Amino acid sequence: MSNLEMIEAAAERLQGHARWTPLLSSPFLDEIAGRRVLVKAECLQHTGSFKFRGGWSAVSALSAETRARGVIAFSSGNHAQGVALAARQHHAPAVIIMPSDAPRMKIDNTRALGAEVVLYDRATEDRDAIGDRIGIERGLTLIKPFDEPQVIAGQGTTGLEIARQAAEEGVTHSDVLVCCGGGGLTSGIALALEGRAPGLRARPVEPQGFDDVVRSLASGGIERNNGMSGSVCDAILTPEPGRITFPILKRLCGPGLVVSDDEAVRAVALAFARLKIVVEPGGAVALAAALFHADQIEGDAVIVVVTGGNVDAGVFRDALARFGG
Amino acid sequence: MSNLEMIEAAAERLQGHARWTPLLSSPFLDEIAGRRVLVKAECLQHTGSFKFRGGWSAVSALSAETRARGVIAFSSGNHAQGVALAARQHHAPAVIIMPSDAPRMKIDNTRALGAEVVLYDRATEDRDAIGDRIGIERGLTLIKPFDEPQVIAGQGTTGLEIARQAAEEGVTHSDVLVCCGGGGLTSGIALALEGRAPGLRARPVEPQGFDDVVRSLASGGIERNNGMSGSVCDAILTPEPGRITFPILKRLCGPGLVVSDDEAVRAVALAFARLKIVVEPGGAVALAAALFHADQIEGDAVIVVVTGGNVDAGVFRDALARFGG
Repeated sequence: MSNLEMIEAAAERLQGHARWTPLLSSPFLDEIAGRRVLVKAECLQHTGSFKFRGGWSAVSALSAETRARGVIAFSSGNHAQGVALAARQHHAPAVIIMPSDAPRMKIDNTRALGAEVVLYDRATEDRDAIGDRIGIERGLTLIKPFDEPQVIAGQGTTGLEIARQAAEEGVTHSDVLVCCGGGGLTSGIALALEGRAPGLRARPVEPQGFDDVVRSLASGGIERNNGMSGSVCDAILTPEPGRITFPILKRLCGPGLVVSDDEAVRAVALAFARLKIVVEPGGAVALAAALFHADQIEGDAVIVVVTGGNVDAGVFRDALARFGG
Repeated sequence: MSNLEMIEAAAERLQGHARWTPLLSSPFLDEIAGRRVLVKAECLQHTGSFKFRGGWSAVSALSAETRARGVIAFSSGNHAQGVALAARQHHAPAVIIMPSDAPRMKIDNTRALGAEVVLYDRATEDRDAIGDRIGIERGLTLIKPFDEPQVIAGQGTTGLEIARQAAEEGVTHSDVLVCCGGGGLTSGIALALEGRAPGLRARPVEPQGFDDVVRSLASGGIERNNGMSGSVCDAILTPEPGRITFPILKRLCGPGLVVSDDEAVRAVALAFARLKIVVEPGGAVALAAALFHADQIEGDAVIVVVTGGNVDAGVFRDALARFGG
């Protein structure tokens, strides 16, 4: 079980390796939202998303012997790159199992970061069977994307930084909106805030049609999504909340929020114009909630976690063409 | 004359107002450059460029009585916004004289930041005469864009941050490449490095055809550009080095570098893909020099100042279409 002590220990291991990302703002965004909007820019993290924190935390927590045998992960994108770079920096081999239809850029980046990428066909092949075979054969350790205590602890270091940065900005009571897939980042942040900034409350944000966490929080039990594709927010499409993350979310989070794909893409364009950061649609849903669902938020300020920036140039150009003015 | 003490005093005034911008990096950029590339991301500064530092420094250095009468500035873009926001935060009126053909977004932003924008026709009207008339009538203080000691001191605070961040990265000897217009930022950084990190050496970077500072450093005397338009690097097109900045540049800087417009635009696309930041072409020339003119640089690492991100969506989309993969 992840707790504040594990997060603090992860922060020590990440010291000098993960980036302390800035808390950005713009008077133009404040005006749209009707309150101060403070944006934790995790797109500026190494590998372009917060996933590097969890990857580094998990890899660095292994014994030297276990680590030397190597790690394995399943991912179509950000977790892949985070684990690949963390493993390379630890001189550990990494095998990443990726669907053959993952974005080309993400496959290329993962390879360029030194990982061995094994592609599989989503329609005809069994991902887990491939992973089991390779992992057992070589004695690799599986690094799960969110339902893994050391991964949650690593993502939770984002929350330690938010607690300190919010205090510096004079914000002691506010919602902290977090783009949510399986809940690793959201639960890690929620645990960190519970210990370090109890006036700040984490709230997950999801895209329409993939609001499993939001519905699960509302019903009190684990709810599933119907599909796994059909949103531009590819980074945060997960079938259901994690078995480890959900109890934490249930205990600590405020109600979730849901935004449309169009709202996410508009937030991408506004982050370009007003914050000068590159955000992928799935990493922009929390900002979209702050800007376009202000009536569901309370207080003079809101904190938003922008979680990733690994967006294809074509998707980004389309976002600017539609909403970039 | 600006010196280290003035820069340190400006840093104290800017404390809690200007943003301490991050030093970013990517293994992919290191590979292109053949050495470590550390990017000081001033596009993440308030108003999207380092100009806010100089604006705040100059406005905050005025006596309360002088400041209450207000300030005036000439600018087609970044300086306009920097002065406008600094003045608003000091509850001082600001008049900004802008050419009527300045980018619409920059005019709109400057107005939205509370300044009174006075437009003039470059072809038929005398900018200085308009400024003098309004300034004298209302008792406004002129904030020059670069040839002004308190502006140089404010820009120099970037250099104080670089000195500390470079030391944290273990970099004590390297070139610091700075996108250069009139030399306010470059001279401020050079002065800060002289005092705080003497192993780091500032070097100006300019676009082809607008390399007045580079040629002036080479000849030892002030050289002028032939024109004032015709480059995509609009933010850094100045006719000649400043009378205050040039002696500082001459005393402290290494040789300048020149990049093509195409190289600047390629650097914009690479900053998008690898650093997740939005950079305008004029703010990317130093990064372009680090990536594409590596043979003119010495050492295991190079520091690059990315100076601004106020780029039109259309220009950015074109950059990605050409070089964004």
